[in-house]
Amino acid sequence: MIRIDALAAALGLDHAGDGALAIDRPRHPAEAAAGDLAIAMDPAMVPLLEQAPVRAAILPEGADWQGLGLAAAIFAPRPRYAMAGLTATFQHPLHAPEGVHPSAVVDPSAEIGEGVSIGPFVVIGPGARIGARARILSHAAIGAEAVLGDDALIHAGVRIGARATIGHRFICQPGAVIGGDGFSFVTLEPGAVEAAKARGASDVTGAAATIHVRIHSLGAVRIGDDVEVGANTTIDNGTLRDTSIGDGSKIDNQVQLGHNVVVGRHCLICAQTGVAGSTEIGDRVVLGGQVGVADHLSIGHDSLIAAGSGVGSRVPPRSVMMGVPAIKRDEFYRMTMAIRRLPRFMEKMRRGEG
Amino acid sequence: MIRIDALAAALGLDHAGDGALAIDRPRHPAEAAAGDLAIAMDPAMVPLLEQAPVRAAILPEGADWQGLGLAAAIFAPRPRYAMAGLTATFQHPLHAPEGVHPSAVVDPSAEIGEGVSIGPFVVIGPGARIGARARILSHAAIGAEAVLGDDALIHAGVRIGARATIGHRFICQPGAVIGGDGFSFVTLEPGAVEAAKARGASDVTGAAATIHVRIHSLGAVRIGDDVEVGANTTIDNGTLRDTSIGDGSKIDNQVQLGHNVVVGRHCLICAQTGVAGSTEIGDRVVLGGQVGVADHLSIGHDSLIAAGSGVGSRVPPRSVMMGVPAIKRDEFYRMTMAIRRLPRFMEKMRRGEG
Amino acid sequence: MIRIDALAAALGLDHAGDGALAIDRPRHPAEAAAGDLAIAMDPAMVPLLEQAPVRAAILPEGADWQGLGLAAAIFAPRPRYAMAGLTATFQHPLHAPEGVHPSAVVDPSAEIGEGVSIGPFVVIGPGARIGARARILSHAAIGAEAVLGDDALIHAGVRIGARATIGHRFICQPGAVIGGDGFSFVTLEPGAVEAAKARGASDVTGAAATIHVRIHSLGAVRIGDDVEVGANTTIDNGTLRDTSIGDGSKIDNQVQLGHNVVVGRHCLICAQTGVAGSTEIGDRVVLGGQVGVADHLSIGHDSLIAAGSGVGSRVPPRSVMMGVPAIKRDEFYRMTMAIRRLPRFMEKMRRGEG
Repeated sequence: MIRIDALAAALGLDHAGDGALAIDRPRHPAEAAAGDLAIAMDPAMVPLLEQAPVRAAILPEGADWQGLGLAAAIFAPRPRYAMAGLTATFQHPLHAPEGVHPSAVVDPSAEIGEGVSIGPFVVIGPGARIGARARILSHAAIGAEAVLGDDALIHAGVRIGARATIGHRFICQPGAVIGGDGFSFVTLEPGAVEAAKARGASDVTGAAATIHVRIHSLGAVRIGDDVEVGANTTIDNGTLRDTSIGDGSKIDNQVQLGHNVVVGRHCLICAQTGVAGSTEIGDRVVLGGQVGVADHLSIGHDSLIAAGSGVGSRVPPRSVMMGVPAIKRDEFYRMTMAIRRLPRFMEKMRRGEG
Repeated sequence: MIRIDALAAALGLDHAGDGALAIDRPRHPAEAAAGDLAIAMDPAMVPLLEQAPVRAAILPEGADWQGLGLAAAIFAPRPRYAMAGLTATFQHPLHAPEGVHPSAVVDPSAEIGEGVSIGPFVVIGPGARIGARARILSHAAIGAEAVLGDDALIHAGVRIGARATIGHRFICQPGAVIGGDGFSFVTLEPGAVEAAKARGASDVTGAAATIHVRIHSLGAVRIGDDVEVGANTTIDNGTLRDTSIGDGSKIDNQVQLGHNVVVGRHCLICAQTGVAGSTEIGDRVVLGGQVGVADHLSIGHDSLIAAGSGVGSRVPPRSVMMGVPAIKRDEFYRMTMAIRRLPRFMEKMRRGEG
Repeated sequence: MIRIDALAAALGLDHAGDGALAIDRPRHPAEAAAGDLAIAMDPAMVPLLEQAPVRAAILPEGADWQGLGLAAAIFAPRPRYAMAGLTATFQHPLHAPEGVHPSAVVDPSAEIGEGVSIGPFVVIGPGARIGARARILSHAAIGAEAVLGDDALIHAGVRIGARATIGHRFICQPGAVIGGDGFSFVTLEPGAVEAAKARGASDVTGAAATIHVRIHSLGAVRIGDDVEVGANTTIDNGTLRDTSIGDGSKIDNQVQLGHNVVVGRHCLICAQTGVAGSTEIGDRVVLGGQVGVADHLSIGHDSLIAAGSGVGSRVPPRSVMMGVPAIKRDEFYRMTMAIRRLPRFMEKMRRGEG
């Protein structure tokens, strides 16, 4: 329970009506019960309040709270920012008691910071260093000589490979694998498929390669401060240098980052996107969901690659790209419109109607 | 070993020949040994029986079993339905002995139903409720206050987050993550990338956003009865409401469902498909493999989205959609045909042949 | 530390300069310190050596090592092959002490080979057979009656299902799931969606299917020798036969192989690719990243499917295919060029400029 006036103050927002009214929790207007605070900062949500049994809501600036029959209201001029504060205030406490669970296997040579929580069946390898107040939930494995900064939150079943170096305030969702071996092989004799690729041919001719010899990963993974990694995401070790992710970058679920990939600072990489080996991504880049980026490319700072795009060549800074292969957004739209008109256009041309 | 007449009766099918003949197990005609029952309900499979050493087979209705040299046959007018019964009859028993393995860490406040099997290294959090006869295999983690219905089958290494609510007869393949945090951030000042997206521009201009502030997930995941979730699939918690999946829906491997997504009843979602945050999917919808669906959309009841499609706008009920961006199936085929003819068409036009 | 002459001999390569010079480790030229061996076999890397403090490097054949101020050099006529030898020489030792960790749960009926390393919290089911010198890292689960060859390396959190049969020298990255149940269902009455698909209609009409009945997987997964499987990859059990992968095939992260899929020998399957049920892939096939292959197809020997392609029909041997749906590479390029020119072309035609 929190009072409307206290909550408004905590969020740095204005309120109106009965500031002493206490609310239980924030809730979607369609699901809010009498004691809840309905979240209707988006004007499209406001009409839902007419049916809702709530007495308090967060509303767009200037909304007619009294006309909606509310006893109190908070006003949010920047809705999503208010959401961040609101959800931080009400977030559920995590079940992660301080201390090392007796079932955990922590190598005696590992250095463990103060105030950590290490859950059941966690394994921490030799020479690993775990920062202060880290919370490592059940079944996680931290490899030999890995370094984890302060205030980390490692969810269940995360695998962090040997020699990974990770900054402060790292959040890693369940099942992520950081530090698998890179997918890199060489054939003893140049393969026919390799040759066809090099020639740009449409058919493969000649003797085929058979034996794939492994190129091992001597590098590891290096991650900056304030990074998040999503559930079941995979980030491979580098070959001669580290695969790396800059400060403040956020990575969603089921993302794949190949060996030697460099992700800059403050990037957003959405779910199921894959970046192939040795590609470098600048700062503040946004990759939508299910994007594919080929190997050995670069994507310039401040670029936006739309969901589902396939990037097959170098992207200059500040570009907005779409499609497979990805092209500039306006060119993509011109092309898409032309294609849509194509069947009728061909028909007309055939009839000589021009 | 089961007799042909008993098996036919169990499957509700007709048989012919020696009903007392006993068979070991059903098998693909190309791999069947003398004691096996060859499965050749598909007419294309029947010729394989000429080489097979088997004495019994399941055949299409009316097939000439004697001409094939068989001693007995079962007839299946609806092949795939017969397969369901057949594989249920012969399915391998699961190694999941009743009881709680001594290594499991079950919080004393958790309520555990009768007849459960809880495997090695399972963790069950405080306040969790596990239904009767649930089988929870090794290394699974069930979060605090999660509720799991009766007769659940939770495979190895599944992570179920705190406060998830799951119905009866839930089947969850290994490595699935239910209840990771949603991927939702807000920037302190509107970012240049955000602005370019809003403007529909092809270039990003102005000062770039740097700090991404997290919107926490206050909701959880709510799953109906008779749902299946595939291996390494990820389903995120909702923000203010629950991410939810309706009764009878089946979800394949490596599917990603973002925060607040609503999946209706009796849907099929194939492998590697991703649905972005807050999108609502109706009842009996089929999403093929590797489909992408953008955020805040709806897909109407009884729709079919073909494999590999990218859905970027609202889909009305009963639609069959294909392509990136997804369009109606007949329009897609017209467009595809036109594109295929385009190089020759352009050539002709250039030569003035119209 | 290793001497230049000894390293050159181990790699079967020529060297020049001070063979007695000892180096610490190979390193990317941009990151190499004074004691390192800079790896600059790619001519594009050579200029980086002018700034690097190193005294030794691996160079392209015939490079002017003295002009670069080096004290010693090794020459690599085939760079990637030299990389394989080099990374094998310097690979980090794995933390996997011989013996069975006291926390592991190994069924008494399992047969364990000589010289194995079985890590903390590993579970090995009844009747499983583990080959000599296998290294099974923490939290892995090996199902009942599974067979694993000699010299396996199973990383943390891998799940290998019951009755899987795996050859020698298997390497499996963290979080992979081998032997989940196939995604295969049948409806009691033919569904409206099924019917629309069969008709090729763009709209779904009639009564919709509701109940999906499961077809169980009676088969397992069969894997040859020298196979690698990537992190969080999923490979489902077969229905009546085994899903199978031939000798020497290498599979990257987050790949999905459906039930009954057959992968030939010496294939390379890149990250996030999915192959739907019952499709057969020949020998020496390369599937790029994020490829989708529909069910019940075949891809002929020695074919190359470019990244991001969607294969919707049978591919003959030795084909190079691209696009969605995938077509021959030269046809794809012709089409792509035509589409790019389309907006201008239409404009011209409209103006009657031909």
